Amino acid sequence: MELKRYERRTHYYETDKLGIVHHSNYIRWMEEARVDFLKQIGLSYIDMEERNVSSPLVSSACQYKKAVHFDDVISIGIRVTQYNSVKIMFHYDMINQRTGEICCTGMTEHCFTTGEGRPLILKKAHPQVDAAFREWLEDQENPR
Amino acid sequence: MELKRYERRTHYYETDKLGIVHHSNYIRWMEEARVDFLKQIGLSYIDMEERNVSSPLVSSACQYKKAVHFDDVISIGIRVTQYNSVKIMFHYDMINQRTGEICCTGMTEHCFTTGEGRPLILKKAHPQVDAAFREWLEDQENPR
Amino acid sequence: MELKRYERRTHYYETDKLGIVHHSNYIRWMEEARVDFLKQIGLSYIDMEERNVSSPLVSSACQYKKAVHFDDVISIGIRVTQYNSVKIMFHYDMINQRTGEICCTGMTEHCFTTGEGRPLILKKAHPQVDAAFREWLEDQENPR
Amino acid sequence: MELKRYERRTHYYETDKLGIVHHSNYIRWMEEARVDFLKQIGLSYIDMEERNVSSPLVSSACQYKKAVHFDDVISIGIRVTQYNSVKIMFHYDMINQRTGEICCTGMTEHCFTTGEGRPLILKKAHPQVDAAFREWLEDQENPR
Repeated sequence: MELKRYERRTHYYETDKLGIVHHSNYIRWMEEARVDFLKQIGLSYIDMEERNVSSPLVSSACQYKKAVHFDDVISIGIRVTQYNSVKIMFHYDMINQRTGEICCTGMTEHCFTTGEGRPLILKKAHPQVDAAFREWLEDQENPR
Repeated sequence: MELKRYERRTHYYETDKLGIVHHSNYIRWMEEARVDFLKQIGLSYIDMEERNVSSPLVSSACQYKKAVHFDDVISIGIRVTQYNSVKIMFHYDMINQRTGEICCTGMTEHCFTTGEGRPLILKKAHPQVDAAFREWLEDQENPR
Repeated sequence: MELKRYERRTHYYETDKLGIVHHSNYIRWMEEARVDFLKQIGLSYIDMEERNVSSPLVSSACQYKKAVHFDDVISIGIRVTQYNSVKIMFHYDMINQRTGEICCTGMTEHCFTTGEGRPLILKKAHPQVDAAFREWLEDQENPR
Repeated sequence: MELKRYERRTHYYETDKLGIVHHSNYIRWMEEARVDFLKQIGLSYIDMEERNVSSPLVSSACQYKKAVHFDDVISIGIRVTQYNSVKIMFHYDMINQRTGEICCTGMTEHCFTTGEGRPLILKKAHPQVDAAFREWLEDQENPR
């Protein structure tokens, strides 16, 4: 199974007075790409919520490499770089389709909780979800 | 009782590539002013939620009179212009403190529902909240 | 020529603590739809900027009919309802693809200025742009 | 000279469907605190722009420690942790006034360019700005 990169055109309201897209939007695009990724591997946010699984953000980081402009189309790739049934880490690369250049890389780290905020060990609580993440992590390490 | 106008400095991330504050922020400032107003008349959003009263937006309108710039301070006045225990209408005027000019006027119209979305008649369901709105509406019509 | 409606999936970060999409996003989606519309009729924002034509918002209005949820796809139709070479008015209707219902209608009214903010009469300053808008307005009144 | 921490109440539109403030707002609050800090040390964004100095973000990182709720007041401290006339790094700590707990820590790293994007060495181009940052960095290392 091969993932499709997430594509996303920038909006006028995302620009700032420097004339470029404001940096605070990138972490929102990462969320959009993550939602799309989870859907592609069969674990939509809405399914997760029905299972009462929440995945709050623990930390994030972002490297801003090239300014992005209004109406540029950004293609975002996402990989699971760590997973151990208590935490998951995603890595993102963003390519500006107009220039072909990487404009941003980033990562987000999440834990798992119930909707009420109690910590979850996925392996015990939701073995199928755990298996899906593990399989995808293995796919990363041993690309077919 | 006299209300204090709500004051609010504009942020860099609220500007757009025209170099001015993007128009989509005004409706957010109206919400900030409304939250502040409700607190001042003793009906905070959080109190309302504890009473399981929600006040979803039915309609809004906005007249954009003067561009607003980064780091300007906007002073927002708010009045209850209609209230009948099923709907409430607020009117807003925004003055740019830097220029002394009105930069925007607007209105929002809200109905009342339970948190689950069932319509509420405030007079029956929450007579105290109803009285507070009525009193404030009367204050508008017959300023002391 | 027939316009394609603008389609747009809602994002997680657009929701609020009521569990629905926050109303302040609708005016942003109207902008997205307008940008797309202008592109479709051959007048992209970027072309307009190269001609040094700006179209600041004068007023807006919005009727919120049905709550919209995370991951819903909204289809937005847009029409030119008034145009006189000094001002233009757009009307928007938004249909939630999940339910088939109209969730929101709205309008925005714009004037025309140079990038520096001086008023423009499009008929004189940019007859081609003027003709494009007029043609599109006529298309609305006399649909072929 | 002692800096005042930046205080900021959270807004309803900053919450998400989990019922807490969406993580994407923290990087915006860091910008607000930075703007306030620069003003306090006599280097407002607007002064910087008049000197044609821009300070684009190079990287950022954020650790999300505790969820923040609607209407909480967040107090943000900011320190210059590195500066060498080509780059500057700020560190942020955010305390939720309601709970007294640190809810978030973060950092941002910026370079200096002209408004047109050409790299700047502040020591050469703007010795006074350079001196201000150096002094403040020294203040950090040798608190009086």
